[in-house]
Order: sequence, then structure tokens, then C-alpha cells
Amino acid sequence: MVIVMRPGVTEQEIEEIVQLLHETGLEAHISRGEFRTVIGVIGDDELVMQVPFQAYPAVEKVVPIMKPYKLASREFQSEATVVRVNGVQIGGGTFTVIAGPCSVESEEQVVEAARIARRAGARLFRGGAFKPRTSPYSFQGLGEEGLKLLERAREETGLPIVTELLDVRDLELVYRYADVLQVGARNMQNFLMLKELGGQDKPVLLKRGMSATVEEWLMAAEYILKEGNGKVILCERGIKTFETGTRNTLDISSVPQIKGLSHLPVIVDPSHATGVRDLVPPLCLAALAAGADGVMVEMHPRPREALCDGSQSLTPEGFEAMMGEITRMAGFLGLK
Amino acid sequence: MVIVMRPGVTEQEIEEIVQLLHETGLEAHISRGEFRTVIGVIGDDELVMQVPFQAYPAVEKVVPIMKPYKLASREFQSEATVVRVNGVQIGGGTFTVIAGPCSVESEEQVVEAARIARRAGARLFRGGAFKPRTSPYSFQGLGEEGLKLLERAREETGLPIVTELLDVRDLELVYRYADVLQVGARNMQNFLMLKELGGQDKPVLLKRGMSATVEEWLMAAEYILKEGNGKVILCERGIKTFETGTRNTLDISSVPQIKGLSHLPVIVDPSHATGVRDLVPPLCLAALAAGADGVMVEMHPRPREALCDGSQSLTPEGFEAMMGEITRMAGFLGLK
Amino acid sequence: MVIVMRPGVTEQEIEEIVQLLHETGLEAHISRGEFRTVIGVIGDDELVMQVPFQAYPAVEKVVPIMKPYKLASREFQSEATVVRVNGVQIGGGTFTVIAGPCSVESEEQVVEAARIARRAGARLFRGGAFKPRTSPYSFQGLGEEGLKLLERAREETGLPIVTELLDVRDLELVYRYADVLQVGARNMQNFLMLKELGGQDKPVLLKRGMSATVEEWLMAAEYILKEGNGKVILCERGIKTFETGTRNTLDISSVPQIKGLSHLPVIVDPSHATGVRDLVPPLCLAALAAGADGVMVEMHPRPREALCDGSQSLTPEGFEAMMGEITRMAGFLGLK
Amino acid sequence: MVIVMRPGVTEQEIEEIVQLLHETGLEAHISRGEFRTVIGVIGDDELVMQVPFQAYPAVEKVVPIMKPYKLASREFQSEATVVRVNGVQIGGGTFTVIAGPCSVESEEQVVEAARIARRAGARLFRGGAFKPRTSPYSFQGLGEEGLKLLERAREETGLPIVTELLDVRDLELVYRYADVLQVGARNMQNFLMLKELGGQDKPVLLKRGMSATVEEWLMAAEYILKEGNGKVILCERGIKTFETGTRNTLDISSVPQIKGLSHLPVIVDPSHATGVRDLVPPLCLAALAAGADGVMVEMHPRPREALCDGSQSLTPEGFEAMMGEITRMAGFLGLK
Repeated sequence: MVIVMRPGVTEQEIEEIVQLLHETGLEAHISRGEFRTVIGVIGDDELVMQVPFQAYPAVEKVVPIMKPYKLASREFQSEATVVRVNGVQIGGGTFTVIAGPCSVESEEQVVEAARIARRAGARLFRGGAFKPRTSPYSFQGLGEEGLKLLERAREETGLPIVTELLDVRDLELVYRYADVLQVGARNMQNFLMLKELGGQDKPVLLKRGMSATVEEWLMAAEYILKEGNGKVILCERGIKTFETGTRNTLDISSVPQIKGLSHLPVIVDPSHATGVRDLVPPLCLAALAAGADGVMVEMHPRPREALCDGSQSLTPEGFEAMMGEITRMAGFLGLK
Repeated sequence: MVIVMRPGVTEQEIEEIVQLLHETGLEAHISRGEFRTVIGVIGDDELVMQVPFQAYPAVEKVVPIMKPYKLASREFQSEATVVRVNGVQIGGGTFTVIAGPCSVESEEQVVEAARIARRAGARLFRGGAFKPRTSPYSFQGLGEEGLKLLERAREETGLPIVTELLDVRDLELVYRYADVLQVGARNMQNFLMLKELGGQDKPVLLKRGMSATVEEWLMAAEYILKEGNGKVILCERGIKTFETGTRNTLDISSVPQIKGLSHLPVIVDPSHATGVRDLVPPLCLAALAAGADGVMVEMHPRPREALCDGSQSLTPEGFEAMMGEITRMAGFLGLK
Repeated sequence: MVIVMRPGVTEQEIEEIVQLLHETGLEAHISRGEFRTVIGVIGDDELVMQVPFQAYPAVEKVVPIMKPYKLASREFQSEATVVRVNGVQIGGGTFTVIAGPCSVESEEQVVEAARIARRAGARLFRGGAFKPRTSPYSFQGLGEEGLKLLERAREETGLPIVTELLDVRDLELVYRYADVLQVGARNMQNFLMLKELGGQDKPVLLKRGMSATVEEWLMAAEYILKEGNGKVILCERGIKTFETGTRNTLDISSVPQIKGLSHLPVIVDPSHATGVRDLVPPLCLAALAAGADGVMVEMHPRPREALCDGSQSLTPEGFEAMMGEITRMAGFLGLK
Repeated sequence: MVIVMRPGVTEQEIEEIVQLLHETGLEAHISRGEFRTVIGVIGDDELVMQVPFQAYPAVEKVVPIMKPYKLASREFQSEATVVRVNGVQIGGGTFTVIAGPCSVESEEQVVEAARIARRAGARLFRGGAFKPRTSPYSFQGLGEEGLKLLERAREETGLPIVTELLDVRDLELVYRYADVLQVGARNMQNFLMLKELGGQDKPVLLKRGMSATVEEWLMAAEYILKEGNGKVILCERGIKTFETGTRNTLDISSVPQIKGLSHLPVIVDPSHATGVRDLVPPLCLAALAAGADGVMVEMHPRPREALCDGSQSLTPEGFEAMMGEITRMAGFLGLK
């Protein structure tokens, strides 16, 4: 951390900060420039973060030097994390497709969707039993009934299940049925939920919050890792910007950025990022080319009957065509 | 709702949509222009929202006409809602200041802060017992111990307590101590928490999410109102933008916008919006002039010792000076 | 400037950077922490900015310490700049209202608007002769004919004229008629135009770009100041965000921020920021309370006939009512 | 266009709007719903855009149905535009790489860069003679001298030259040397420059503005097309968002979006979008996979000596490695 003092600061004010650093067990390194005095702080970052330097009027700004996350960083662990779910591998030279409907609606719908998904080459099946909806007047999901239907789909197809934990009180329930516990964008900074998931032994799929920087997203992963659960899969799903042609703006740059900053696998969800069906296939290929470890897409046997997000769901035909392209390009790139 | 059909749509495709509308119990009104055919939909909006028109390839876009919230709208209730908390009034020609430290740290700190707040004219006291922190390595709050200290502050000063419900599992606990239950920005779309709060009889202070439009914010309020709790206070606290000079960007326009769209009272939190102490007093005055029903600010007896947000907390002297200005200007404007 | 080296950097790589600094005439100050080595750079900032430190693989990041502008900063000039235009003062304890139609349409319209403006207490008159329009099919302004009509309005009312220089090739022409040369939001980073304006002796009203930070805005002002023209008036007019309830998001916090960072006067344009007539009066009062030196608003004798921005223009009655409120509150605050 | 009337509107107010429509030569189609009356407007859109419906108090909102651009739309021209520059083709099943340094610095630098570019497979050469710089203290380009050096590079390598027209007054000069005239992000809404370029016979590379929606970008293209120049190449270069890990946020979704909305070719510039060298190769591949017609990247023979943007420039080795990957993947995808 570097502390920049205001212009015209007195020796006494500098001394006060140095004193404070020493009391906290930190070392100070003073550089006096023509216009500013700068204090380099050396020592344990956890200590540094406790001290409210910025509350001192003599301090102009405080510049962090270290990344604020540790366990999630490449520096902490240089080899890539590979997450395994019932024999399916995410990360480590694979490209994994997760597919399924936005929400679980009926046994017929969910089993049919899972069969289409498996046949076309998807390795995990997604579906929501609890749905976060902007409007209280929209369909809110089938709840436990929906989880049971997902279990049926797994029995039929063998595909492991990814489903969202919407409310921390449902953890035990969702844990019972899910193979991967999904944290939705709106819960990315639900820190108590993250802590609970850090205590579980099942993988967590952590969606990026709509207003979260890559750094904040990795800090959210850090909450889970810190409690002992290392099986975190990051999922880019678009950020909120002024562009209205798509629901959110897919931040494709976050994929190679994450690959540099972290050892965790990262996948992309173009369905939620854009809200537009036709954009999903080209963006899946873009994710693959950019180095993502997989994609998650919405597909519905009959999108017109979908109770949720019908306009962004791929049709079975569209999904199969896309899977053909993905499989060929992944093969060309030497990914499994 | 208006459905815009793609160019070159066939009569049969138009008929299919009209048929679908009739089956849903809705009426269709067709306008054939030179370049586009547009179908006006007439009928119950709750029905309209169930149908995934956009999933039909012949549909180019669907344009909502009605606002998606009802109970929160001015059309539903034209007179302003006034929320009463132990004799304190929010809304209806008053300007209410809520003040206190970011987090509860000790009995001495909290009681001293509450005394300063009351003496200077604040009418409610705020303080966090559970703190949402971006980093798992930051101070996370005192928990129930903190709630007890807030109770002590109330005993000493009579000021009602505003405190955040961070985890829905703590509702009973927080309810016991709080006079106003605060929903933080990160929980604005925690729909299950909103529903629970809709079943309570205490007022809810609903902060705007960092990536929420005014419309989405009112939809979140709708979740609470729909369950029967009409005592909702909206709190503008800045949105996420590219500007880095302040932590978030205070959207002051949301205040007069809300006044036109809704009957709910709206206050402003410039401390969290900016993260910069010196900006708090001018922005409180701006909120007052723009028509807000109050402000919520952070103040700490000794900001340098604050365990949280010290750099944005007002000092007691700064707070008193600001309260003088607020009181004079509120008086000039004829507010109580 | 502080240079943060990558972890695991070698002594030789550090030495290479130090060498480079010395060659450039700069001094290096090395702090070796447990995880990172940090080099403080001391010396002339203009020199520092020439060297592409970040192009060195051993450099993790470069952190600027000094503000990148000088002449625009409070540190360079502590007393507030007051801009004078034909006897009207902007800055220095005044609150100046600039009003007029979006575009000049006819002699009748412009003279009538100017009379209404003067009668209600506006001190400058605005109107566009050259209009930047998103669509090539929209009205583009009357050009020189419009400038002549503005001159007529000045003859009739004595109000000095603020008008936009849209194309640098029209500088001489616009200079002939205008009292204040306006740089529109889209030209804030038209650096060659800024340089030309820096060589003029008339005041420049510099609107903030829609995607410009406060720092970038002050850098744009620096371009004008550097060429010798110190009469710069800053104008906040909203930034581009995800919120769609208003055309842009008025960043009211920029007003007190600018007051801290710079000596230049700053005014607010709520008409363009919001695009909504009803929001203009409360936001003008908010600007006044936040410490702005004035406001610029759109007003049209008959908004329904406006060829541009009719929906955000105040009616004469609305304008007069608002001016009453502004005058009273400015008087209460002791402003002239 | 659809006009939504306010609730409680009178028959007379509806009649007034209908009258106005008729006077303008437009047809009205009235739908009376339970809560709102909606008027569908049928007729020439250019006429519709002239009328300030929103200025009428009885009008709640005006919803455009048609896209506001015509000549740039797929509906107007269904086959893809192919732009040809001295034998090089952009669009129409090709993937074109444009490479070169940010700014022209010396004959040696520019000729060397052009040779590296050609050898590795780039088909156009880029370099800036006039540089838009945020700070007036940064290097501003060599001007005409720089254009002459670009000419030298073309003589040496045969690569056509892409260079920016920064100031409309330099059009003749830049036209003399350039093969493709580039409009920078900051000039995307410099409408007078766009009109001038619309009258030229050389291709225009139109960068997306940092705060421009895809629609506004296509409207900017419309300005050029309307004047008769159909050779427009769109270039996505990132938009301004809250994410600070990259300079801007590359909006990769704009590529397939443009492909659906327009017939114009679109390329991607990941160097300016991110400002980070290591992110350029994966994002070039992502652009290719997403369907872009090419990329434009910064490459410098010796990035450490670059006077501009050294940290985002590829080294010759990095560039060659990337070109190998691009060529292989383009071949796999059947592109030339």
C-alpha cells in the first residue's frame, strides 16, 4: 500500500502516520517529492486493511499495491484448478457445455430438454427451481417440486445438475438434489451465502454480479475458498451498461483476464448476457476462442411455451446446430 | 403492450399471434403500416406478462406500455405515503435526518454517536451490526452484540434505530431490536427477503441496488407492498458508473422522478454514494432542494478509529455544522 | 508516480528501470516489500509521462500520484476564477441562469424567448445555430442565419449570447456573434478545437463529455488554459449510464468535486442531462444547493412547435415559476 | 411510431394529437385500453420525426417502431457490403488484419513495422500522424511529416494505409496519403466530419464512440451513406463502463448484432478496447469466432520506445505468433 500525503503536509502529520503504522506493526518508507510526500507501507496486508488511513485529513489518497484476494490468485496457485462433477471435468483443457431451460416447468419439459442436451453433447444440465424475477407478478419457479424433476432428468440422462441456490435457507434442500450449486448474479455479494457454500463439498458456480468488477468477483470467490471449498467455477454473464441492444453487455475480456489473474475455471453464459437467442451461438464460439472453459446456455424444447426467458432460449434444432460448430472448433483447438 | 411484427411477416403469422392473444383472454388491435404491422394488446397486464411473445420468430419486439408496478405507483395512490416510526414522521412535508456510524463498534462509540446525532437534530439513528464487506478479510460486524448496543443507544437518546437485515435468517433477531429494517443495496433484488419483509409490521428502508434502474427499484418495493407492508422508504445511494472520482454516482434525478412515479417517500444517502466526507454536506443540501424527504449520513465520534468507512464519515463538528445548514434551509423551504 | 514491479522480478530488471529513470532525469526511490518491490519516481511529471514504463514486462502497474492537470487545479490557483461577460459575472458568489431555446428557429421565436428570459431574471441567452443531431434526418440548425437572429435577440434584450461552436472551421464566424463560445459534450475531446479556443479572448463554456470522468473533463479545460485563455466555464450535463428513466444521469457530485479540485466556475444543465421538462426545476435548485455557479436551461415560447428537444424545454410559465424559486433560494443563500 | 397517452386523457386531447398527425400527413390508429389509450402512427418516418409529440402534456411517451437508420440497415440492403482497398477486400467471407503502431514516430520505426506486418500476413497498415491525447502534455503526433512516412511504408510493402482524420480541416491533406480514412471514437458524432467523408470516394473506417449504443453508431454510419459514400467499415473498440481492469469494455456482442442489423462490414480493435497487450491475441480469436470481418491491432517494433500506448502494443514476436493462430483458425472456418 502507498499513502499519498496532501500537498503542504507538515512533518508532524507525516510523523503521525508513521507512528500509526509502527503501532500496527507495519513499516514505513518515506519518499519526499517536489509536490507530494509518499509513504510506502510494508507488512502484512490484513493488518494494513484494518487501518482507516483515509480518515486522516493529511492523507490525500491510499493506493493499494497488492491484489485484495489471495487464495483465488495465480500467485497463490499457479496450476489451473480442475473441478470434477460426477466424472465431468471443468477446466484443464476441456470445453464443457451446460444446457437446459431457464426454469423447470414440468416433467415432460425437463426430461425432454435433458435428452436433447445429452444427445447433442452437453455434459451438465441446468434448470431453475427457484427463480429470481424482477416482477412479483412473474412465475417464481416450482420450488422443491422442480428439484425433484431435475433429479428425474438426471436419472434419465446421467447428466449432473446445476441449479441455483436462491435463498440461503434452502441450502440443505438444494444440496440434496444439485451436483453444482449456482450462485446467481444478484447473490454474488451475498457474503453469508458465500460463506455457507464455502463449507460445502460440492462445486459452486459463481455468476458475476451485474455491477461487479472482475476484482470484486474474485473477492466473492475468495469468500468461498477461504472457508475451504476450492471447487469454484466462475461464470461471466454480462454487466450493466448503457447499451440497450442486449440485456447486459457480455464482458468477453474478463475471460483472458481471469486466466491471468486466477487459477479458477471460467465459463460464459451468453443467454443471460444478451437476452437474444440469435446472439448465443456466435458468442459461444467467441467464448471458446477467447479461452473459456465452457459455456452455459438456455435451451427449451418449445421456447414459445417457456414460462421464463423464452426469447433467449435456443430451440432444439438451433442448439444441435450450435453444438456441432462448438464440437468441431473445440476439436480443432485440441480441447476435449 | 404493443407487439411489433418483423417486416415481411405473413398473414398466417399475424393470425397465430392474434389467436394466442385470444386464447389468453386478451384483445388484439392490428395496425398495418407501410413497413411494419403492429398489434396493440388490450387486457389484464398480469395475463400479458405470462405469454412469451418474443419467442415467436415473427415478432420483432414487444413494447410494454404500462408500468410494470402497480401498488408503488402514483396512479394507484395519489397522496404521498407518510411512514411513522415511534413518533417520527418520514414523508409528508418533513425532512428527516438519519445519522450514525457505519458499523457498531463499542458501547462508548455508539452511545456517544447517538447523543451527537440527537443533539444536532437527527431523528433516527443508524448503525450496522452485520456488515456486507467486499473482502472476507475486513471487519464483518458485531452481530447480535451490536444490536444490543444499538438498543442501549436508543435507551439513552430515544432515537429509533435503523439497521440492516443482511441475512434473511436473522429476521426475527433484527426485528427484535430495529425500528426500521434496512435492505442494503446488494439485497435490493433478494426477492425472498423482500417477501418476508412484506409480512412484517415495521417500516422497511429499501436502498437502491448499484445496478438497478428506478423502475427495477420500484419493482423491488412492489414485492414488499404486495405482501401487505406499505411502510416502505426508498433510499437513493448511487449507481455504478465509469466515474471513479466518487465510489458510485449519486443519481439525484431519481428523487424528483420517484416523486412523479410513486407515492413512497424517498431519502438520499450521500455517504455511501460518494465515499468522500467533504461531498456529504453539499449533497445533503442538494437532496433537500431536489425534494427528498430526508437523508441518511455516516457520522463517527472519531472517524480515525472507525473499523469501517472512516474516510466517508463526518466528524461530530462537521455533522453539527451541516445540521445547522440543513435546518435553516429546511425551515426556509417550509419543511419540518 | 509509483512503479509496482511484478512478483519475482530480478535485481537486474529493477536496475533496468532505475537506469531508465536516471537517463530521463528522474530520481528513483526503491521500497522492497515482502511480495512486491515498488519504485517511487521523483521529478518533473512532464518527463515522467514520456516514458512507457508499462511496456516493460517486469512492470506490473504504474500508479500516478499527481493529478494530470495543472493550470486547472486549485493547487495552482487557490482563489476562484470569475468569468465576466459584458458585465455579467459567472463564479465568485453569484448564481447565473442561462436560458433559451435548444435551436434558433425564427426571429419571432428567438426574440420572444430572449424577452421572457430577461424578464424572469436570466443573465445570458442561449440558442443553437448549429445543432449536433444523432439522426441525419433531423433538423440541423439555421447556421449563420441563426447567429444573426441571436444578434437580434441581444440587441433587443442586452443579454449576452452563449452559442455552440460545432465545427472548428466556423470559429471566426461564431466568434463574430457569440459572447460565450460553447463546446458541446461531443466535442469535449476535440483537442484541436480546444487549442483554437485557447487562443481566443472570449469565454468558453465547456460541457462535460457523456463518457468523460471529472478528471478527463479538467484535462480538456487544461488544453484551453494552456493556450492562454483562462475564461473557462465548466458545465455538467449528465453522463451515460444504464438508467433509462432520464436521457443521461446528472452527476451532481461533480459540482462539489470540481469546487475542491479546481478554481474554475461550474454550472449545471439539467435539460440535456435528463431530457424531461418536469425534472428541470428541482434539479436547478439542487444545483444551487450543491454549490454550482449557475444553471443553463432550455425554454421555448411554444415547446410544441420546437424543432428540437421540445419535450425537455420549459414553457414560459414554468420558467418564470422556477426563476422565482431560484431567486428566493439564491437570496437566502446570500448569492447574487 | 406509437404514442402512449397519459391515463385520464380527454377525448379532446386525443383529438388534438390526431389532428396534428393529419396536418403532418400521417394516419392515426387509436386503441383504447382499460388503462391507456395508444395511438399508432402510420406514414413516412421522416415526417414523424419532425413533430415534437412529447412536448404535449397529454402524451406519456412516444415509442419508435422503426429503426432510425435506413441506408445502413439489412432491410434496405440484404447482401453484405464488401469494401475493396487497392485489391484488399474487407467483408464477404474474408478476415482482414490491420496492424501497425499507435503513432508514427520515425521512418525506421514505421517501415520496420510495416515489413513485420506484411510478413506475418496483415493486409493493411495502420499508424497515426495526428493523435488525440487526453493530456495536452502528451505527444501529439508528427502531422504531415507522419503522413509522408506512412507513404514510405506503403512504397516499401504495398500495404494500403489506414490513418485517422482527427480534424476536418485536414481532410484534403489526409486524403492525399490515406487509403482508408479513419474516424476515431471521439469523432463518431462529429456530424460535419461524417458529412464531408460521405462526399469522398475512399473507404471510411468508423470507430464506435465510447458512449455510443449500436444504434447511435449505425446512425453515424447513416450520415456517411446518406452523402453517397457506401464504403463504410465499422470498428468496435470498446465502450465506457465501470470495469477498470481494462481501459474500456469490448462489446463483442455488437459484432453478431451488427451482422443482423446491417450489411456493413465490422471489425474489432482489442488493443484500444483493453489497453492490455496480453488480452489482444485471445480477443482477436474471439472476434474471428464471433463473425467479425477482421481486426485492427497495435504492434510496435520496440514497444518500450513507443511514444504512445506502448503497454498495449504487441511485440513483433507476439504479433507473429498471434497471426499464426488467426490464419489457422480463419482457414478452419473457411475464411480467406
